[in-house]
Amino acid sequence: MAAKPVSVLITGANRGLGLEMVKQMVESPRPLRKLFACCRDPDGPRAEALQTLAKKHPDIISIIRLDASDLCSIKQCAQQVGSLLGMAGLNLLINNAGILAKATLQETTTEDMQSSFNTNVMGPMYIFKEFLPHLRAAAKASGMSGMSTSKAAVVNISSTLGSMEFVKHSYVSFPAVAYRISKAGLNMLTLCAAEELQKDEILFSLLHPGWVRTDMGGKDGEIDAPESVQGMFRVMASLTEKKNGAFLDYKGDTVPW
Amino acid sequence: MAAKPVSVLITGANRGLGLEMVKQMVESPRPLRKLFACCRDPDGPRAEALQTLAKKHPDIISIIRLDASDLCSIKQCAQQVGSLLGMAGLNLLINNAGILAKATLQETTTEDMQSSFNTNVMGPMYIFKEFLPHLRAAAKASGMSGMSTSKAAVVNISSTLGSMEFVKHSYVSFPAVAYRISKAGLNMLTLCAAEELQKDEILFSLLHPGWVRTDMGGKDGEIDAPESVQGMFRVMASLTEKKNGAFLDYKGDTVPW
Repeated sequence: MAAKPVSVLITGANRGLGLEMVKQMVESPRPLRKLFACCRDPDGPRAEALQTLAKKHPDIISIIRLDASDLCSIKQCAQQVGSLLGMAGLNLLINNAGILAKATLQETTTEDMQSSFNTNVMGPMYIFKEFLPHLRAAAKASGMSGMSTSKAAVVNISSTLGSMEFVKHSYVSFPAVAYRISKAGLNMLTLCAAEELQKDEILFSLLHPGWVRTDMGGKDGEIDAPESVQGMFRVMASLTEKKNGAFLDYKGDTVPW
Repeated sequence: MAAKPVSVLITGANRGLGLEMVKQMVESPRPLRKLFACCRDPDGPRAEALQTLAKKHPDIISIIRLDASDLCSIKQCAQQVGSLLGMAGLNLLINNAGILAKATLQETTTEDMQSSFNTNVMGPMYIFKEFLPHLRAAAKASGMSGMSTSKAAVVNISSTLGSMEFVKHSYVSFPAVAYRISKAGLNMLTLCAAEELQKDEILFSLLHPGWVRTDMGGKDGEIDAPESVQGMFRVMASLTEKKNGAFLDYKGDTVPW
């Protein structure tokens, strides 16, 4: 990409795709200035790899506690990030944190439904609302016309499992009803945001990372995290106002609703 | 329709489209045998028209309390209906109850999101689960091959506002973010159910009633409730296994996801 985002925030940054995103961002030949790597438990054993990475790049990476299912932690995170960002604002917010419930409809519990909805839909909504001032600041400060991920953007990590068109092909092998419902909800949330924030020149996009061999995707996945993230970064760099509200996979192909 | 459902359950039956459905069903030249008209508060002032109608058709209409946001009331309703139905089962379940929050994304509250999700998504899920034995009984008892609403079916009342494709056209004039998210979720739930219950020969379908002049649709709606319900009943009567999981409007046209 010609211009790169100066400041980026990634949720669920301690593992899988989130951790790989952090790695590739800081290890690129022209890294960004400020990377907020958010996760639920920064001091826990599951954040060790992220902590190690942050120690290698202390000027760039700030690890900040954020639980996408907890509004209070989102508010605290937004305050912390705001005080570190100042007037320049936040260029790119990647909602990567998510949970996966695999059950069929008949097995799906209230808890599956509520926790999937809270983390995968309410979380991105709260995060969007709390970080909106920082995104607006970035859009204003950029001086660039149009929309891009280097100016002011929200990328929500979705899934083809949230696509209505894909249910027929994939349901028997992977029901995941609560997850599908939450990702369909996230898709709708993102489309609404794309319409509502158009006038602020904040871009919204949905990305399907592919079926990736991570803790969430399992060992039968089709690609590894580096390939997925390389692809998603290429797609993010290519986004303009023409793709506002688009649902794309890591190769840049449109995913049907 | 050649064959008609013998037993039908309608939620939100005290007002608007639900009440009109009850009317048209009992006033048809060949009415059904048993109609369970469910609403939150059967003894309240908002159920008076339904009570009057039930007094005219006491053999057909049973008014039963059901609050789609309350699992306990759903369980009680399913028990009551089960004891009245016996072995014949329930042919057609129409999830018509729903709530509408009209706010933009920035105005949408936690309460808007949670109550829309509870009533419009969790409700139909719980209702489906609790009535599944009755639907299965009807499918088995019917002796008919294939799928139809006169055999065993769930019709979920959705909306074009739940269509991703329609966001661009309609967002500015009618944001309703929490409602849109809940209807997209309901659409996904219905598609999953259609796949999962295919082997039981229970049909699932989504209907958009049109923009109707009711309490929910407002006075600027494009059609009146009788026209909407006539259309939806025509569509319901035409449904076969080929339309399992379809999203159709009251004229029978496919609504894009």
